[in-house]
Amino acid sequence: MHLFYTPEISAKDEFYFLNEEESKHAIRVLRLQENAEIQLTDGVGGWFTCKIIQAESKKCKLQILTYQANYQQRNYRLHLALAPTKNIDRMEWLIEKATEIGLDTFTPIISARSERRELKTERLEKIAISAMKQSFSAYKPIINSTIKFDDFIDQHKNKEVLIAHCLDSKKEFVGKIIKPNQDYIILIGPEGDFSELEINKAVKNGAKEISLGSQRLRTETAGLMAVAEINILNR
Amino acid sequence: MHLFYTPEISAKDEFYFLNEEESKHAIRVLRLQENAEIQLTDGVGGWFTCKIIQAESKKCKLQILTYQANYQQRNYRLHLALAPTKNIDRMEWLIEKATEIGLDTFTPIISARSERRELKTERLEKIAISAMKQSFSAYKPIINSTIKFDDFIDQHKNKEVLIAHCLDSKKEFVGKIIKPNQDYIILIGPEGDFSELEINKAVKNGAKEISLGSQRLRTETAGLMAVAEINILNR
Repeated sequence: MHLFYTPEISAKDEFYFLNEEESKHAIRVLRLQENAEIQLTDGVGGWFTCKIIQAESKKCKLQILTYQANYQQRNYRLHLALAPTKNIDRMEWLIEKATEIGLDTFTPIISARSERRELKTERLEKIAISAMKQSFSAYKPIINSTIKFDDFIDQHKNKEVLIAHCLDSKKEFVGKIIKPNQDYIILIGPEGDFSELEINKAVKNGAKEISLGSQRLRTETAGLMAVAEINILNR
Repeated sequence: MHLFYTPEISAKDEFYFLNEEESKHAIRVLRLQENAEIQLTDGVGGWFTCKIIQAESKKCKLQILTYQANYQQRNYRLHLALAPTKNIDRMEWLIEKATEIGLDTFTPIISARSERRELKTERLEKIAISAMKQSFSAYKPIINSTIKFDDFIDQHKNKEVLIAHCLDSKKEFVGKIIKPNQDYIILIGPEGDFSELEINKAVKNGAKEISLGSQRLRTETAGLMAVAEINILNR
């Protein structure tokens, strides 16, 4: 199976031309020929099975055979809001793994103790697309630009928000708090953790405090652990 | 808190000399001085609280104040046997993350469809030590040398073995099969999956077939997902 990401495709299309880069990949790299079947996704659940009808390496023409909306849709939506690590490789790894396991939205947040206060999202976007294709998924996580912690909390007041931190407090395991088939936002702090002020602000706004276990996890490991746990609890 | 890995320390020691590398790290890099407190672990559960009594950068002398065996011991032991990925970086990530979350033993296995048929473990060993220190754990995973799949199965006949694969068969979710407080071995195949022959051999020898969810995961993501799931189920 060969999956291509074509965000501008429409459910009504009968034919579709791959762009120059994708055409080259299909014809020159994968060496696909006329009548070969390939899959396209728009990254928001649309799944198209197509046949190559003109195998041209600059403008490959496809006939769309079938279209399916909400392809293999998960029963929950997950938004991970995480203070990016100093080392950018760790963020890239997180985005790849979280996309494979299941993530809808990623927002880099700037917290009081954040050492990294900006994050270029172009490369993370590419990694998300590549992980989506690799895992034959029809869902590309939305990667937002960075936002300050306080602003993020203000913008998500009536949502189900879970905040993971290392301070002593009444924390619960995720499995004790969440219900299946529901949407959650998970907040993960920077290397030095959220400040008490930040935790208090989140809790005042309705966030629930969670524990991801007794072990001490790096920021990106905590993020992935949360993504994995929500996935497991929704089976 | 500063944690050092000192595998040759004994529970009976009253004093201890850090080796040259660790001494340099303590005195030159961390700039610790006399009377500073540091922690040592032997990597097998021993946890030593020590005081620097001679802050020498080639041979730092410590007085051992307290010793605790089985420090923060988990209630299960987990052995991950996984066919290494072509890309070695993916193995390094897996070892780091699995060590943070909780892993006792890692064995690289050579399966029928393995593209990588050998794996140098020296660097993985270093990564495991670094992750153990980073997460203030007293347990360093044992990293075995590579072994053929068939030999591994023959050597683990009377153990609780779970095999993850992508073929259609009667698979169960890990949560439906495992009991808390028990030891498990998890088998994860190479990029092209285990062969049917291998799966049959494992099952004939008592292995249970597991599913890690409906999403398609890379080898190292599957390994980490299994490590996370067993950890969550043992809370």
